[in-house]
Amino acid sequence: MPTSALLSLADVRDAAARISGICLCTPVVPVVMPDGTVPLRVKAECLQPTGAFKLRGATNAIALLEPERRVRGVVTHSSGNHAQAVAYAAARAGIAATIVIPDNAPAVKVEATARWGAQIVRVPPAERETAAEAIAEETGATVVPPYDHPDVIAGQGTVGIEIAEQVPDLDQVLVPVSGGGLAAGTALAIKALRPQVRVVAVEPELAGDLAEGWRDGQRRVWAASQTARTIADGLRTTSVGLLNWAHLRAHVDDVVTVTEEEILSATATLVRGSRLVAEPSGAVASAALLSGRVDPSPGTVAVLSGGNVDPALLARLVAP
Amino acid sequence: MPTSALLSLADVRDAAARISGICLCTPVVPVVMPDGTVPLRVKAECLQPTGAFKLRGATNAIALLEPERRVRGVVTHSSGNHAQAVAYAAARAGIAATIVIPDNAPAVKVEATARWGAQIVRVPPAERETAAEAIAEETGATVVPPYDHPDVIAGQGTVGIEIAEQVPDLDQVLVPVSGGGLAAGTALAIKALRPQVRVVAVEPELAGDLAEGWRDGQRRVWAASQTARTIADGLRTTSVGLLNWAHLRAHVDDVVTVTEEEILSATATLVRGSRLVAEPSGAVASAALLSGRVDPSPGTVAVLSGGNVDPALLARLVAP
Repeated sequence: MPTSALLSLADVRDAAARISGICLCTPVVPVVMPDGTVPLRVKAECLQPTGAFKLRGATNAIALLEPERRVRGVVTHSSGNHAQAVAYAAARAGIAATIVIPDNAPAVKVEATARWGAQIVRVPPAERETAAEAIAEETGATVVPPYDHPDVIAGQGTVGIEIAEQVPDLDQVLVPVSGGGLAAGTALAIKALRPQVRVVAVEPELAGDLAEGWRDGQRRVWAASQTARTIADGLRTTSVGLLNWAHLRAHVDDVVTVTEEEILSATATLVRGSRLVAEPSGAVASAALLSGRVDPSPGTVAVLSGGNVDPALLARLVAP
Repeated sequence: MPTSALLSLADVRDAAARISGICLCTPVVPVVMPDGTVPLRVKAECLQPTGAFKLRGATNAIALLEPERRVRGVVTHSSGNHAQAVAYAAARAGIAATIVIPDNAPAVKVEATARWGAQIVRVPPAERETAAEAIAEETGATVVPPYDHPDVIAGQGTVGIEIAEQVPDLDQVLVPVSGGGLAAGTALAIKALRPQVRVVAVEPELAGDLAEGWRDGQRRVWAASQTARTIADGLRTTSVGLLNWAHLRAHVDDVVTVTEEEILSATATLVRGSRLVAEPSGAVASAALLSGRVDPSPGTVAVLSGGNVDPALLARLVAP
């Protein structure tokens, strides 16, 4: 498939067949407030075996490798949920994975990736992309990109197919956006299956590159020093990918931002109201509704994209 | 149905049809350890709108009320998950509910029940059962018992039907036991659908009335002062019900107990390994496998029965 073309629902359906049995079909769970109201439901991607939706795209991309590429393995650079996803998907497919992790990443993140049997290569942060490319060049391993690739977008889009099937009264979908793989794929699938449903992408205000240029149709690139300010460490990408941008323009109705305080408040609300552990990035979409930045609507589903939260932060947020 | 007869799978299937649309078909989620192994999966009943499996039995019992009983409403006594379940199920069915709550129950539990619109009556702890009966007598409201009733057992048994359908490689089911509604119904359904699967009931050692008499076939009754010692506050019933006992003897393979330390450790493991919030009672079944008190087996599913945990305890357990 040419990487410049927009994906179709058929691409996402094919991905759904490929990832079935490895990724969980996650439930849609009501968020119950202290007064008994349910302002939204969440698609609980934190329940994936690696704790985040990233497993869908990585599994689809790896399933599509030709046999001659499989024997040479895969490589990626990440210290977060994409690293765990590639390591886990490769292990399940029985192929080798090398993960380049910046040497300033916390040990707990390295261990979370290493437990799936991947080879870990640690380099200075600035060298991670070139290091991954060099490994690919030397070994013939295939790079599994985190978001800007049709197979990854198609895999993440399976979230949208599942929501459309699970929620008959669906009228609004909120999805976090960083590089834009999840938002692009989910929006595509929702609009194909339920064209009347409104799709809103949500960013932290401190990493609001997409929101900044959305109204005038400009894809913006922020500095890493800007996006690094948000506590939502899964959403610090400095821009959406080019292919992701094209999909977002075609299928997303609006882009809104949320503050750091709103993100943390939503994280706590999800624990209390749904018994689900979210990381701050995973609570960003819910925060948009809970803070009133998108209009309430009874058929609202937010994607709770991941749950790999720092234990100290979680303890602080759940304390009475 | 005569209350002394054992239920059949058909009774549980009928209950499943009745509760569909009100109770969630909860997912079965892998528990991933720091080394990447998955020693068990959990049936995530903490994701029900009221945070516990109790909603299934209450919904089924209320759905079966005759029209002339519906107009007179329902009543029960509980300060825990059964109170919330009856209040929520009654609200969804559009009928009145009165919940008798001991006046030493914490305010947070009263509020959690009151938010569903139930009328709350607070009495001294020793009077709660007689108070509920007096209300039933005066008003004609139907008492919804917490466990010792065929409609409640059938409702809880829908957990077993779902597990059997969701887990093709199932070989062992671990289920917590207190009054025995969940354990009786789940064991019945599992043995009817998958007779080769081993079913083990799990109790806190400090509320081990069932385990004590299991080997010699004696149903034991402990003092409330004994069972009150366990932190698993949902499992402090002093004995299993008579109807529950008959089902457990017919369908359960073994009964084991776990220590307080094992319960707390399992609660923390579920948060880290599955991103699910469990209350101590909800982690008891998982604790039996994680502590080695039942043999490991790759197709093990434990019922995570509830997630209404005290926030201060949760904060302490998840802290690094």
